[in-house]
Amino acid sequence: MNKQHAETLARAGLSHIIEPNDLTGSALVQVAGAPEAYRIIREHSGPAPANEQQQVAELLDANGANRSSLRLDAGLERWRARAAHADPESDLKCMNDLGGGLLTPANENWPLGFEALGLGAPLALWYRGTGNLRILRDPARLVAIVGSRDATEYGRTITAEIVQGLRARGLCIVSGGAYGIDAQAHQAALAESGPPLGVDDPPSTSTIAVMAGGLNRFYPSGNDEMLQRVHNHGILIAEVAPGATPTRWRFLQRNRLIAALCAITIVTEARWRSGALSTAHHAAEMGRDVGATPGSVFSANSAGCHRLIREGAATLVTDAAEVIEMLTTAQRPPELSPGIAQRQGRSESAEDARDYDGLPVQDLLLLDALPLRSPRTADQLAVLAGLGMGSILGGLSRLSARHLAERTGNGWIRRFPRGPEPQRGAPSAP
Amino acid sequence: MNKQHAETLARAGLSHIIEPNDLTGSALVQVAGAPEAYRIIREHSGPAPANEQQQVAELLDANGANRSSLRLDAGLERWRARAAHADPESDLKCMNDLGGGLLTPANENWPLGFEALGLGAPLALWYRGTGNLRILRDPARLVAIVGSRDATEYGRTITAEIVQGLRARGLCIVSGGAYGIDAQAHQAALAESGPPLGVDDPPSTSTIAVMAGGLNRFYPSGNDEMLQRVHNHGILIAEVAPGATPTRWRFLQRNRLIAALCAITIVTEARWRSGALSTAHHAAEMGRDVGATPGSVFSANSAGCHRLIREGAATLVTDAAEVIEMLTTAQRPPELSPGIAQRQGRSESAEDARDYDGLPVQDLLLLDALPLRSPRTADQLAVLAGLGMGSILGGLSRLSARHLAERTGNGWIRRFPRGPEPQRGAPSAP
Repeated sequence: MNKQHAETLARAGLSHIIEPNDLTGSALVQVAGAPEAYRIIREHSGPAPANEQQQVAELLDANGANRSSLRLDAGLERWRARAAHADPESDLKCMNDLGGGLLTPANENWPLGFEALGLGAPLALWYRGTGNLRILRDPARLVAIVGSRDATEYGRTITAEIVQGLRARGLCIVSGGAYGIDAQAHQAALAESGPPLGVDDPPSTSTIAVMAGGLNRFYPSGNDEMLQRVHNHGILIAEVAPGATPTRWRFLQRNRLIAALCAITIVTEARWRSGALSTAHHAAEMGRDVGATPGSVFSANSAGCHRLIREGAATLVTDAAEVIEMLTTAQRPPELSPGIAQRQGRSESAEDARDYDGLPVQDLLLLDALPLRSPRTADQLAVLAGLGMGSILGGLSRLSARHLAERTGNGWIRRFPRGPEPQRGAPSAP
Repeated sequence: MNKQHAETLARAGLSHIIEPNDLTGSALVQVAGAPEAYRIIREHSGPAPANEQQQVAELLDANGANRSSLRLDAGLERWRARAAHADPESDLKCMNDLGGGLLTPANENWPLGFEALGLGAPLALWYRGTGNLRILRDPARLVAIVGSRDATEYGRTITAEIVQGLRARGLCIVSGGAYGIDAQAHQAALAESGPPLGVDDPPSTSTIAVMAGGLNRFYPSGNDEMLQRVHNHGILIAEVAPGATPTRWRFLQRNRLIAALCAITIVTEARWRSGALSTAHHAAEMGRDVGATPGSVFSANSAGCHRLIREGAATLVTDAAEVIEMLTTAQRPPELSPGIAQRQGRSESAEDARDYDGLPVQDLLLLDALPLRSPRTADQLAVLAGLGMGSILGGLSRLSARHLAERTGNGWIRRFPRGPEPQRGAPSAP
């Protein structure tokens, strides 16, 4: 058995035994490696090995997770019953027969977005479907669209419109495969083939369903046909092994995977208490952008979206263009934005003095405080420029009217009214 | 003629001659006093008096308003034609006959909120109606409710619901007397008598209409009956003299008065380009709280509200309770909040160590960065605590679950989970 196969086999077994987001399990794998962790768990009887017990405790401590229930000996007790029934060869064969398999962190298609989960990242990722797994590597092309199960016609309509607009840009729609908004998001994504092949490389995968239970069956059964179509044209993924039932815990933990996979999470319709809000909060905690669609204040089905916007956890979005705006301004890494590099490279002397004619002194101070690249909030600008909030807001309004400042994401950056010029006098990129 | 009467007469005359927000006029009045300014303007022929010319220029310069059109000699030319026709005695008599009069900044009922306008504050304020003028002194009891003229049934309904809720708390509704949302706000306010007398002192004035033209007639004429009812039960105000027509400029300037009068401005329904947005932006520039009501993303009549929320200029509000929450958390001066003083007085030793059990280190750092009084945004906390945004958002969520942090306005403050205790060991209030 080669090393890679041993790793895959061990993680398949571990994914059967250890619940999602069980930090003790992740810590043991990090300390001992997956094959050794799997061996320790399967052969466990009597006290926990002292060395690993100590190292797991230290690792958890360093992650701020020092509850007694997370001690390795407690974990080994917790996993004992299920360890006896792990059969990773059979699970791998089952998924292979269904047109799927298992990704481990060593795999080239392991989701880049999972890095944000730290110790809470899944131990392995089961998949099935015909979509191109490479899309998992690219959070900036993945948009989560989630919402309540009891969707209204309004919620379904705006979900479909946003998904269509995102698909037209070749973006992939990630959701949870549930009734209501989730199902509508997948269906609308499946209906749009995306931009023609060749323009978009790798070929555009329309949708990914992140499941809370094992991928050997489709759940909920009422979405059977829709999920079969996701299998035929997209990808289904889960961190639990085939045969695992979708428990409440696994639903909640599934939400963190959706949030971690995608650059942006959009809640298109959600009640005051909805699982979609948990996905949104996971995304916000990871520093990802979150959007929410408003609706009637008299609709209980929009109350969750309003709550997110009101609490500052989500930006209000009304259409696909506004979602794409979030994606291009906030999430794109600098090397993908030539415009920014050009703006940075632009020398002071290239600016035209007329641009600043007649600006009051405080606006010139504000101009100096505006960053070229990472947006600053009005609050930050007030501190930097030493101006009151009234001057800042007035100044930003005047400067943006002159195309000297631009709102982007939650903040503001400097702009140059005559557009980007060829880079000169700046360090050249390697 | 006593001094007070001279002041009133001069300002009545000036309000006839000088357009709203003409900073040269305000500067001249500030430099020379109203009676002398009025004399200079009326007797003007030939060059401007050198002394005043110089002082006006310096004052305008200090206010960042140094355009040549604002020079005193340009102002005197601008005012010359209208100065010949000023008849303040007649204007005062006219308004007196209509059950009104003129407030000057020396009057005890001069709106406190006008201070935020600085040099742009009106020179005088004409009023009529039966409401108690003392309400003008108290921005925290004044809520502006504004919106588009072509209101939908949805916009009218949510306007009426919010107004009813605010009136039940004795708050006074300020609007612009226009068709659509403005009219609905006044009407809903007139329909609610407010809390029973005696509980609320001074007697609750239901509504104030801030007019763009002279108060000798009601405009627009289609709102005649409604504005007559405002006169009978509330107050109408304007900074322009009787006889002045409501021009486009005066409409725009009227919006700044609405924003300045009130602690909070709420836009209940507005199109993408609406005068209501100008009121909202005036309020935001003055650092006042702004709220906006969401609606269907398919309704053009809600696009302006969505724009304000999306751009961060307004907080999303869905009902009166959320408006009142804004009023109580953000606007109340510290001396009115005994809870805060008590929290401040509470000594470190009074805290219970159990409150912090099991908190990760970064949450303790965050706790130290949380202010007792003036809320800090997550951005500010990240800078102060030296933590990433992910840790800040996660930490705030954990700390607020333990009642150690509280969201208030746009930021967060420290809380103490066992409730305020009798003040001890802190400096006592005078």
